[in-house]
Amino acid sequence: MPKRLLLNVFEMNCVGHITHGLWRIPGNNRHRYNDIRYWTELARTAEAGQFDAIFIADVLGAYDVYGGSAAPALREGLQIPNNDPMLVVPAMAAVTDHIGFGITFSTSYEPPFAFARRMSTLDHLTNGRVGWNVVTSYLPNAARNFGLATEIPHDTRYEIADEYLEVLYQLWEGSWEDGAVVRDAANGVYTDPDKVHPIDHVGEHFSVAGPHLSEPSLQRTPTLFLATGSPAGIARAGKHAEVVFTGGHGVQRTADAVRDAAQGAGRDRGDVKFVTQAAVITAPTQREVEDKVAQYKDFASEEGPLIHGSVPFDALSHPRNRTVRDALEAEGVDGGERLVGRVALDATVGELIDRVNEAWNGAFWAAGVPEAVTEQIEGWLDDDGIDGINLRQYHSFDTVRDFGTYVTPLLRERGRLPERYADGETLRERVTGGPARLPASHPAATYRHTSVPA
Amino acid sequence: MPKRLLLNVFEMNCVGHITHGLWRIPGNNRHRYNDIRYWTELARTAEAGQFDAIFIADVLGAYDVYGGSAAPALREGLQIPNNDPMLVVPAMAAVTDHIGFGITFSTSYEPPFAFARRMSTLDHLTNGRVGWNVVTSYLPNAARNFGLATEIPHDTRYEIADEYLEVLYQLWEGSWEDGAVVRDAANGVYTDPDKVHPIDHVGEHFSVAGPHLSEPSLQRTPTLFLATGSPAGIARAGKHAEVVFTGGHGVQRTADAVRDAAQGAGRDRGDVKFVTQAAVITAPTQREVEDKVAQYKDFASEEGPLIHGSVPFDALSHPRNRTVRDALEAEGVDGGERLVGRVALDATVGELIDRVNEAWNGAFWAAGVPEAVTEQIEGWLDDDGIDGINLRQYHSFDTVRDFGTYVTPLLRERGRLPERYADGETLRERVTGGPARLPASHPAATYRHTSVPA
Repeated sequence: MPKRLLLNVFEMNCVGHITHGLWRIPGNNRHRYNDIRYWTELARTAEAGQFDAIFIADVLGAYDVYGGSAAPALREGLQIPNNDPMLVVPAMAAVTDHIGFGITFSTSYEPPFAFARRMSTLDHLTNGRVGWNVVTSYLPNAARNFGLATEIPHDTRYEIADEYLEVLYQLWEGSWEDGAVVRDAANGVYTDPDKVHPIDHVGEHFSVAGPHLSEPSLQRTPTLFLATGSPAGIARAGKHAEVVFTGGHGVQRTADAVRDAAQGAGRDRGDVKFVTQAAVITAPTQREVEDKVAQYKDFASEEGPLIHGSVPFDALSHPRNRTVRDALEAEGVDGGERLVGRVALDATVGELIDRVNEAWNGAFWAAGVPEAVTEQIEGWLDDDGIDGINLRQYHSFDTVRDFGTYVTPLLRERGRLPERYADGETLRERVTGGPARLPASHPAATYRHTSVPA
Repeated sequence: MPKRLLLNVFEMNCVGHITHGLWRIPGNNRHRYNDIRYWTELARTAEAGQFDAIFIADVLGAYDVYGGSAAPALREGLQIPNNDPMLVVPAMAAVTDHIGFGITFSTSYEPPFAFARRMSTLDHLTNGRVGWNVVTSYLPNAARNFGLATEIPHDTRYEIADEYLEVLYQLWEGSWEDGAVVRDAANGVYTDPDKVHPIDHVGEHFSVAGPHLSEPSLQRTPTLFLATGSPAGIARAGKHAEVVFTGGHGVQRTADAVRDAAQGAGRDRGDVKFVTQAAVITAPTQREVEDKVAQYKDFASEEGPLIHGSVPFDALSHPRNRTVRDALEAEGVDGGERLVGRVALDATVGELIDRVNEAWNGAFWAAGVPEAVTEQIEGWLDDDGIDGINLRQYHSFDTVRDFGTYVTPLLRERGRLPERYADGETLRERVTGGPARLPASHPAATYRHTSVPA
C-alpha cells in the first residue's frame, strides 16, 4: 500500500510568517490576519482540499538581532505584529467538521495548570481535532517579556520542558478516570468524586495540586508534535513525539536517530511520523507555474531571511565582495558563532546573503504542473523518508486552494490520501492510524490511574 | 429619556454555574458545555434577543471547604468540571455580528505579557466586542494549582493586580502609537518602527520589556469590568472600572461609594455603570410562570449554595434545630468567621441553610408575565440605582430565549433598549455611549505615547 501523506497548512497568526515580503502581492490576504473571516475562510478552503491540519507557529518576542533592534522585523511585518495562535482555533472549528489544528505553545513561561485546561477545552470544542507543537522558547526578547533578564539556558529550558510535560500528563491522563463523569440526573450526580484525583505534583520547577478542572476530552493528551534538530531534542522527540517537525536535508538521518530513541524508550519505531516544511507551487500549465514563481521571487524580501535567521550584522549595507570577517569587524560585532554552519568567516557577504536566502526556501521545493509536483511529493515520501508536509504559503489563500484543487485529487488517485475524511475521527486517529488515546507505550500512559482493588 | 438597560447573559464554561441542580431539568442544555454548538447556539439566541454581552465567570480551582473536600462540588457539577472561558469567544464571534463578550480573568497567576496578547487577539477577532472582568483569585485550591502553598494574602493580591493593570495599560495603550501600522506595500513597510516602543517595565512583581506583539485593536484596552464589595475594591473600581458588577441589597450605597472614588481619581461620576446579577422568569401566562418557578424549585439543590458559599461544616447532616455553634463544635471545625454576616453562631442550622439558599437567589428577582417583569426591571433601573443586569440562567437556552422573545420587545417600546444594534459598534461604545477608546480621564490614558517634537 502506498505511504499516506500527512498534509498540513503551515500558518502563523501574523502578516509575515516565512515567505517574507509576499504580503505585498496584490490579492494576498495575509494582512487580514486580524480578521476572523481570514481564519474561517482559510479553514474552509483547507478542508475543501482535504488537508489534515492547520499547523500554527508562534513566537513570544521580536526578532531583534539583525540590525540590532526590532525595527527591521517591524518594517517587514516579520512575525511582528502577531496574535495568539490558540484563539483562532475555535473560530475555525465552528465552521469545519474534520480538519485538525496544531498549536505551538512554549513550555518556558506560562504555568502548566492553565495551559492544561486550555488544551482540554480546545480538544472538547474541536471534538478531538487538536495537536500541540511542544516548543521551548529561544528569542532573548521573549525571555525579557516574561520577567527574565536573558533567555533560559538551553539545558534548563529542556529540564523545565520535561517537568512541564510530566505535570500535563498527570492532569490529562491521571486526574480523571474513565467513567468519572456519569451525568446521572436521576440521582443528582454529575461526577463520581471517587474517580477524580488530585495530582499533588511537587517538583523542581512546578507545584500543582489538581484535580484537573476539565473533564476528559476525546484525546485527553492532544496529539503531540515536536520540532527537533539537536541531540537533546532527538532524545525528547523519541520519548514524547507522535509527529516530529524537522527541516532541510538529512531528514532521513534525523528520523533514524529519533526512531532509535523511541525504541530505546520502549516505543515502536513507527510511533513517530516525520513532517517537513515544503513548497508546492502549481497551476494547470507550466507557463502559469513560471509566472507564479517569478511573481513570488519578485516580491520576496532579501532582508527577511537575514532578520529571521538572526544574522548578527547589517549584511545588506556592505559591498557583496567584502568578507564576512571584515564586515563583522567593521561593525564591531562579535557574532561570528551565529554564522557557524552557514558560511565560513572568509566567505563574502554576498555568499552569506545568498546562502541564507537559499536555505530559507528549504530542501523540499516543488514547482510544476499538478502531475509533476505530485510525483515529487511521492518521491519525498518514498525516497526521502518523510511522512508529510507543512505546506508553506506564498499566497493566502491561493497556495492552499491550488493544492486542494490540483494536487489533492491526484494524491487520492495514487492512494496517498484517503478518498475522504473519516467521520468523527480525532487528529490522533488520523495521524497515527491508532486509537484516539495515546498508546500504553507512551510515557504519558504511566500516569493513568488504576484503581487499586480493595 | 428613560435610562437604558445593559443586558448581559450570565454564563460560565461549566455544567453548574449558579443555579445548582438545574442541569438535571429535562431539555436543559447545560451538560453540553463541552460542545462548540452549545456556545454558537447560545450566542445566536442571545443576539436574536438583543443582549449586549455574554458575561463569562471563571474559577481556577475547586470549591473544597464544604464537606472538607472537592467531592460535594464534583458530585453536583458545581463549577467543576469547567473549561477555559476565553476559548469559547472566537466560536461565538464567528457566528454573530453584534453581541459582546465579557471574560473573567484573574491577575493572580498568569504572566501579563501573554494575557495582553490574548485580549488584543480577541479584540481583533471580535471587532472590538470584548470586555475583561478583572478579578483576583480567592480559592485556596486555585493557589495550590499555581505553585503556591496557600492563597495570596488579600492586600498582596490587590498590589499585584494594580501592577498587572499598569503593565497591561502600557502594552495596550503605550506600546504602539496610532498610525504605527501603515501597510505600505509599495515601499515594503508594514509598520513604522519609530512608532513602536518597548515598555521596559521593571516593578515589584513583573518585568516586561515589550514591545506589545499585537497591533492596536479597535478598543485597545478591552472594556473593563470589575466585581466589588470591599473598601479596597471600591477604590480600585473607582479608579479603573467602566462597569462594576455588584450584588445583593445596598447596590445604591456601593454605587455612591464607587462614584465618589471615581471622582476622587479625576474621572466623571457617570464613567462607571453598575450591573447586578438578576433572575427574570417569564412566560405569556401567569400559570406558565408558576409552573416554571415550581420546576426550578423542584430541581434546585439545597446543598449547592452551601458548597458554593464555602460553609465550613456539613450543615445538611445536622438536625435543623441544632445551633450553628454546637454543630461546629461537634465537627471540631474552627470556621465561625466564615459565617460572619450570614447568621449568628447561636442561630440554628436550619436558619443558616435557609439564609444561604435565600441569599443565593439574590435581591433582584422577577417572575411574572412579560409586562410585570418589565415593570420590575424598570424599577431596578429607576429606583435601585443599577444600570443593567447579568441574567441568571435557570435553563439554557429557555431563560435567554424567553427574555429575548417576551421582554426585549417591551423594553424597546419603553426606550430601555435601542431599536436595534448599531452596526460596527464596539462593546465600549455600547456600554459607555462614548468612543471606542478609553477616555483621557482613565488612568490607562496616561501611558499613551506622545511623540516629543524635535
